[in-house]
Amino acid sequence: MTAPGPILVVNPNSDRTVTEALSRALDGFRLPGAPAIECVTFEDGPTGILTEQHVQEAALAFGAYAAARADAGAIISACYSQPGVDLARSLTSVPVIGIQDAGVLAALARADLFGVIAVAPGSIPRHLRHLRRLGVDGRLAGEVALAEPVSVAESGRGERSFALLMQAATALAGKGAGAVVLGCAGMSGHRRRLEAELGLPVIDPTQAAVSMALGAILPDAA
Amino acid sequence: MTAPGPILVVNPNSDRTVTEALSRALDGFRLPGAPAIECVTFEDGPTGILTEQHVQEAALAFGAYAAARADAGAIISACYSQPGVDLARSLTSVPVIGIQDAGVLAALARADLFGVIAVAPGSIPRHLRHLRRLGVDGRLAGEVALAEPVSVAESGRGERSFALLMQAATALAGKGAGAVVLGCAGMSGHRRRLEAELGLPVIDPTQAAVSMALGAILPDAA
Amino acid sequence: MTAPGPILVVNPNSDRTVTEALSRALDGFRLPGAPAIECVTFEDGPTGILTEQHVQEAALAFGAYAAARADAGAIISACYSQPGVDLARSLTSVPVIGIQDAGVLAALARADLFGVIAVAPGSIPRHLRHLRRLGVDGRLAGEVALAEPVSVAESGRGERSFALLMQAATALAGKGAGAVVLGCAGMSGHRRRLEAELGLPVIDPTQAAVSMALGAILPDAA
Amino acid sequence: MTAPGPILVVNPNSDRTVTEALSRALDGFRLPGAPAIECVTFEDGPTGILTEQHVQEAALAFGAYAAARADAGAIISACYSQPGVDLARSLTSVPVIGIQDAGVLAALARADLFGVIAVAPGSIPRHLRHLRRLGVDGRLAGEVALAEPVSVAESGRGERSFALLMQAATALAGKGAGAVVLGCAGMSGHRRRLEAELGLPVIDPTQAAVSMALGAILPDAA
Amino acid sequence: MTAPGPILVVNPNSDRTVTEALSRALDGFRLPGAPAIECVTFEDGPTGILTEQHVQEAALAFGAYAAARADAGAIISACYSQPGVDLARSLTSVPVIGIQDAGVLAALARADLFGVIAVAPGSIPRHLRHLRRLGVDGRLAGEVALAEPVSVAESGRGERSFALLMQAATALAGKGAGAVVLGCAGMSGHRRRLEAELGLPVIDPTQAAVSMALGAILPDAA
Amino acid sequence: MTAPGPILVVNPNSDRTVTEALSRALDGFRLPGAPAIECVTFEDGPTGILTEQHVQEAALAFGAYAAARADAGAIISACYSQPGVDLARSLTSVPVIGIQDAGVLAALARADLFGVIAVAPGSIPRHLRHLRRLGVDGRLAGEVALAEPVSVAESGRGERSFALLMQAATALAGKGAGAVVLGCAGMSGHRRRLEAELGLPVIDPTQAAVSMALGAILPDAA
Repeated sequence: MTAPGPILVVNPNSDRTVTEALSRALDGFRLPGAPAIECVTFEDGPTGILTEQHVQEAALAFGAYAAARADAGAIISACYSQPGVDLARSLTSVPVIGIQDAGVLAALARADLFGVIAVAPGSIPRHLRHLRRLGVDGRLAGEVALAEPVSVAESGRGERSFALLMQAATALAGKGAGAVVLGCAGMSGHRRRLEAELGLPVIDPTQAAVSMALGAILPDAA
Repeated sequence: MTAPGPILVVNPNSDRTVTEALSRALDGFRLPGAPAIECVTFEDGPTGILTEQHVQEAALAFGAYAAARADAGAIISACYSQPGVDLARSLTSVPVIGIQDAGVLAALARADLFGVIAVAPGSIPRHLRHLRRLGVDGRLAGEVALAEPVSVAESGRGERSFALLMQAATALAGKGAGAVVLGCAGMSGHRRRLEAELGLPVIDPTQAAVSMALGAILPDAA
Repeated sequence: MTAPGPILVVNPNSDRTVTEALSRALDGFRLPGAPAIECVTFEDGPTGILTEQHVQEAALAFGAYAAARADAGAIISACYSQPGVDLARSLTSVPVIGIQDAGVLAALARADLFGVIAVAPGSIPRHLRHLRRLGVDGRLAGEVALAEPVSVAESGRGERSFALLMQAATALAGKGAGAVVLGCAGMSGHRRRLEAELGLPVIDPTQAAVSMALGAILPDAA
Repeated sequence: MTAPGPILVVNPNSDRTVTEALSRALDGFRLPGAPAIECVTFEDGPTGILTEQHVQEAALAFGAYAAARADAGAIISACYSQPGVDLARSLTSVPVIGIQDAGVLAALARADLFGVIAVAPGSIPRHLRHLRRLGVDGRLAGEVALAEPVSVAESGRGERSFALLMQAATALAGKGAGAVVLGCAGMSGHRRRLEAELGLPVIDPTQAAVSMALGAILPDAA
Repeated sequence: MTAPGPILVVNPNSDRTVTEALSRALDGFRLPGAPAIECVTFEDGPTGILTEQHVQEAALAFGAYAAARADAGAIISACYSQPGVDLARSLTSVPVIGIQDAGVLAALARADLFGVIAVAPGSIPRHLRHLRRLGVDGRLAGEVALAEPVSVAESGRGERSFALLMQAATALAGKGAGAVVLGCAGMSGHRRRLEAELGLPVIDPTQAAVSMALGAILPDAA
Repeated sequence: MTAPGPILVVNPNSDRTVTEALSRALDGFRLPGAPAIECVTFEDGPTGILTEQHVQEAALAFGAYAAARADAGAIISACYSQPGVDLARSLTSVPVIGIQDAGVLAALARADLFGVIAVAPGSIPRHLRHLRRLGVDGRLAGEVALAEPVSVAESGRGERSFALLMQAATALAGKGAGAVVLGCAGMSGHRRRLEAELGLPVIDPTQAAVSMALGAILPDAA
């Protein structure tokens, strides 16, 4: 059996800072003998996926990219809106995974009820629609947005954003959440510290997606 | 940060053949720098987890084992009935993952509807109860048992069991399943071939659990 | 109060035959004093919305069109995949209605369980995903595809397609459907005859959407 | 094809003031060439449908009326408890529509989550039972009663009731409702103003039912 | 504490044969010191509750009867359509129990999935609506009607009806039912024999309702 | 027909005070001619079922006990965690009933929405998991824990615990509960007074289970 191709982690916006943060959070998954993990920035994308218009445009770009990378081992739509997952699946036989799916499903493997931290209140309705489509909304303890505006890039570094994440996570624990999903690809830098201070599993959706991709493509034998 | 301890994959029955098959299917996940993967046989367990009595006894044994292995990075209940997951979570802060949860949730990350292959018809009601508890029964395309009796140990090797698996998987595809979960820890040996011949993702639940464990414990940085 | 602007019924494909059939089925809704009903063909669209790629491209085109028509009274995405409804709602304050939503919801106003006729089996999974997102999948008696290939344009005229529709509708009635939704914008030409021969309400989704649009925008007073 | 008979909008209580308000709210739907809209008062009914006893008695009266009006194009049970809809469907082949069904389903065609304004707290449990029967309770953002007692007749006119409606609707928007259903046939007089001041779709259930009736019976061709 | 009044088991039709059969099946519940069990025939009712019209008329009669019997310990609506349960609850503080509720809920206390035997296919949609309102439709293995026409009175006696019940119950067991509910008040005479021959719990809904009534009203101390 | 054997009410902990309180609450069900009701203390059990470890150990003990008592008419797992119900069903053909199932299902027979009073907040997540497995979580108005620590034995006697129960029950009524389940076997002593002061049905789960057991085993004829 030939070795699996690389896992492509696609940041559909043009903000390289975000991609670099994603990439840093995946360093621990870059193991000798395992598939390479390539983090991709869509240079032509918007600076952030903030509107339905952005989601739709990113879906097309992600589909086209997936169709062109038949060499990949797996392809990950690394924005919490996971643009283009259904489209890419219709265009390639390479495994395609969305980070919202992966983050939520990984949380369900760890606890009965889960909570989600949103960067901003405006994302919550879109997330709820997605959870209903996933059919797992019955296990949502709640979704809470950061109490102050934070950019995607800033959401994973610095004391201010950490304090806001901790406040949201604590509120979710109070609603019964046994695991907390970071509802944005940019927050990964805070995952470990938040998990330690909160005392509950904290799921970074991109790490969850990469680990699911490994499960899908690692060969049975070494 | 200290390196995470080993991932313990616990086969709660006393059949070493099953443990060895589990272990072989995980060889691809034994990567340099990654946590070790130790497969454990419960020498005092029954030869197979076939009855509710077995499940309950295995739960206690699994809980006791988990409580005693605070050195572990993660602990996996590697029987599809996943005995003792809730119990172990109440006794240790180490991540605990059940393979039925992991297998089903990994399937949901790959397709809209999933199917399950049961070793024997008698397991199906127990599985359905579990899916309802998971809250994901609405996405089950169906569960199909092998058409002839096959032992757990035999279910992952040989042409006869492969043919039976292929027959069940094809029936599930006909019911709309976009991904197929192997509903028994013993079937892993057939995963790759089944996936190739079926043309749909096939999920081995133990591999799914190990990949989720990696996602939970791999450090952010190399 | 100024009179409401026109109801725009957007056929996102480039097949004018389909648009003309849609328009004919809406003639009864063109009443003196009521908003005009304009049926629009997307000349740059594909000849049919057959793939996820088509759906995604149509969504962007529909959103752009909706954003540019602030003069409209209401805008209808008149393909059963209803591309761009969420996007358009984010871009305009004009009421936006999708025909799958409207057809299914109109059926629920007429009977306990409903059935859907799909043009082709390949559409069924996409429809089921949408019903789960709508949260009304619990009331689906079943979805049945036409037993032979029929083009969208052909699906609303001629004896062959009528016989296939009747066969599918009869199967749905046997599954307990108390109302039947035509699962494609092209079938409207057969609605009345099917309703009469079947003896159950048959819902044309475009007519359902236009009637809901009228309910949204007709002024209270004449 | 003969022209459809009139749409009968049945107010099952004896309060002509309510019927007249209903009728006024439907003036915009009385279009040349469209079916007539006749609003009917049950002179022998109670002055308001306030108790289960009233609902049950009204159901029988509505059924008898429906059975006697085979000349109708459609018959609407125009009380939010929609007495007699199932009964009438068993007695006539004329389309029968209940206004709670129509109002809620029309809201679902406009937004992801909906809210309902109840005249009084006592109606809420009955409404929730009905939503569960409809199978759409998963999309309810919430139901809120007017904060002060208001009669059905008064609920659609005057500044006091408007202010109470606006207060309830604002609370529903805060709970995530993207569309608001007026949970009583008497509130229609406030619909347009509430929609304008709230900035969200507001659904009058009787208008919703009449528009669905038009969709059911308008001929395909003019 | 004064002794509880009698448990009134109301057969809302005028067929005394049915009442007598009900009463016979309750003989075992007539224990010294326990509340009396009075079986009541509505002499003015129809000979059977076969239509929605019958259900609605019976609801009013049942409500009036319940309101007049404040001396009762509990009141049971002993027709599977359980006419008037909500109405009676609004008119009296005496516990009111419907036999469909009781039968289904008793089955859920005995097994994971349940099945229902209907006297005739026409009852099935009404039953399904009720199960959805109860919110327990997710645990229904299936509902099967007797394969040949049988009157309510005949459904609980004689070899022909027993054979038809056995055939239906066997079909339900094949669909996964772990307990079977007799979906008509008239079948009680066959309960014990069916249970013995089928090897699964068989629930007579009237017995289930009476035992729930006992649980509601028996004093804590002898 | 031979008379049914005794109903065994098993308190899986070693606290005889609790068993005696259970037994007292069942005195009213000890009727001449009815099956005897034997309340059993597991002398080797823990003093209270407070942890998952206790639940798992009690399940095995309950299963073994049930398997050894083929003479019983019915066997009840009389702890709200109902340890061992599934296990016991796999080991005996005697009817086995759990008190959480029975309490919740009896509440559903009395009202649309129900509430549960928990002894302590820590039990709530376990109860919610069970309700989801039962599939009736959609009808839960809420679960509320006593506001101060109370032992199981104390929870059914004395003014302090009554006041705490009344406070919790009132909160549940405010959330829409139409019936209240005592979420612990020890609270039965307060049932009648709570029901009287609250004005809503209050369900003691052990009484509910015994009455369902009577329904399952009382002979048809006296």
